[in-house]
Amino acid sequence: MLTHNEIKFINALQRKKERIENGLFVVEGVKMIDELLQSDYEIEALYSTSDTFLQHSFSKKINKSQLGRISNFSKANEALALVKIPKEKNPNLQKTSIILEDINDPGNLGTIIRTANWFGIDQIICSPNSVDCYNPKVVSATMGAIFRTEIFYADIATFISESTIPSYGALLEGEKLPQTNFQKPCHLIFGSESHGLSKKIIDLLDYKVTIPGTGASESLNLGIAVGIFCNQFFNYV
Amino acid sequence: MLTHNEIKFINALQRKKERIENGLFVVEGVKMIDELLQSDYEIEALYSTSDTFLQHSFSKKINKSQLGRISNFSKANEALALVKIPKEKNPNLQKTSIILEDINDPGNLGTIIRTANWFGIDQIICSPNSVDCYNPKVVSATMGAIFRTEIFYADIATFISESTIPSYGALLEGEKLPQTNFQKPCHLIFGSESHGLSKKIIDLLDYKVTIPGTGASESLNLGIAVGIFCNQFFNYV
Repeated sequence: MLTHNEIKFINALQRKKERIENGLFVVEGVKMIDELLQSDYEIEALYSTSDTFLQHSFSKKINKSQLGRISNFSKANEALALVKIPKEKNPNLQKTSIILEDINDPGNLGTIIRTANWFGIDQIICSPNSVDCYNPKVVSATMGAIFRTEIFYADIATFISESTIPSYGALLEGEKLPQTNFQKPCHLIFGSESHGLSKKIIDLLDYKVTIPGTGASESLNLGIAVGIFCNQFFNYV
Repeated sequence: MLTHNEIKFINALQRKKERIENGLFVVEGVKMIDELLQSDYEIEALYSTSDTFLQHSFSKKINKSQLGRISNFSKANEALALVKIPKEKNPNLQKTSIILEDINDPGNLGTIIRTANWFGIDQIICSPNSVDCYNPKVVSATMGAIFRTEIFYADIATFISESTIPSYGALLEGEKLPQTNFQKPCHLIFGSESHGLSKKIIDLLDYKVTIPGTGASESLNLGIAVGIFCNQFFNYV
């Protein structure tokens, strides 16, 4: 059974401000929660319509209609957890990272986290104006990879300047990706969906790299570009 | 000015059944409509809040609030067109194609069309249970590439069997993609987001191909996998 106040509190966590104030975010679905339970993330509460998770002290059984009222998705999936946002640490300047300037789309960020994880990159640096990684749509699109990835929000120009490992930026013009031998460790740097990289960041790059195409369309989707870069980084060096 | 009936009619086109019955789909946004005007697609009507498109006989000026009432998106963008669904043709059996089995997510299909176009693949075959390519979210995610791509819905097992060019399927186990020299033309074949390729289709493949990763996560996003395959097809053979 959930009280009216509990429902209100959980729904408020859809907003970034409330997540920060309460230090909590929401994780939904059985597969995601299986991954969560294997991680170091601390669970504050877990609501489930089945008995699967009831052995945990933080678990509570609720009915389907109640789950529907606290879920962020039109099809709620059996369980929902409130999870503590980990304490802020400092990013590692000398570690391979994906760096994102003003990424805006939650689905894109989630997919990028999932893809980075597939290719063994576990540090992501987002500029402060980027979408929040604890947004429910981001969390869901990571398919659990968020629990295995360290995500930081920082001034990316400062980060790139202070790091001494090489930086490769994705641009529409530059050296061709298939001919790029990424030095490891390195930074892979991408601009926003609509504006690409800013001049300030382009000026800091060691290498400008492009994915050759036919020229028929204007650009690739940001997530796709990151995926193709990560594949090159992992599989061709 | 739009009548109540016009608004009702346009909103009904959000549903596949209504699109088929009326032979029309909706295209939104200035950039998309610029691309549309350069294509062979026939425009039935164009509604715009600016004077940009008023030289065309099919154009009509409306105000922002009216555009909001017919748009599929929370942020409507200046113009919306009703476009005739092209007459059905038969796919070319011997042409390089992306073949999709039961793809479900409109954003994924749109991104795949956009990506295919970037890498010069202009024929896509979807199994009949796949999401409709004239769904507004698909159209929008293609960023205009839908006007340069032929998309067919057909029994993909029959298509693969009748075609004599080689078929490469994406699987979690198989030969490694970086070592795959795609013969051209060929078919690149992908399963659904949740179930991958069915046994029936796997049995028809000439080559089973996998994207090597760390094994930390279970799979890649479908759109990302297609992007990485297309990049290999275009850039490494």
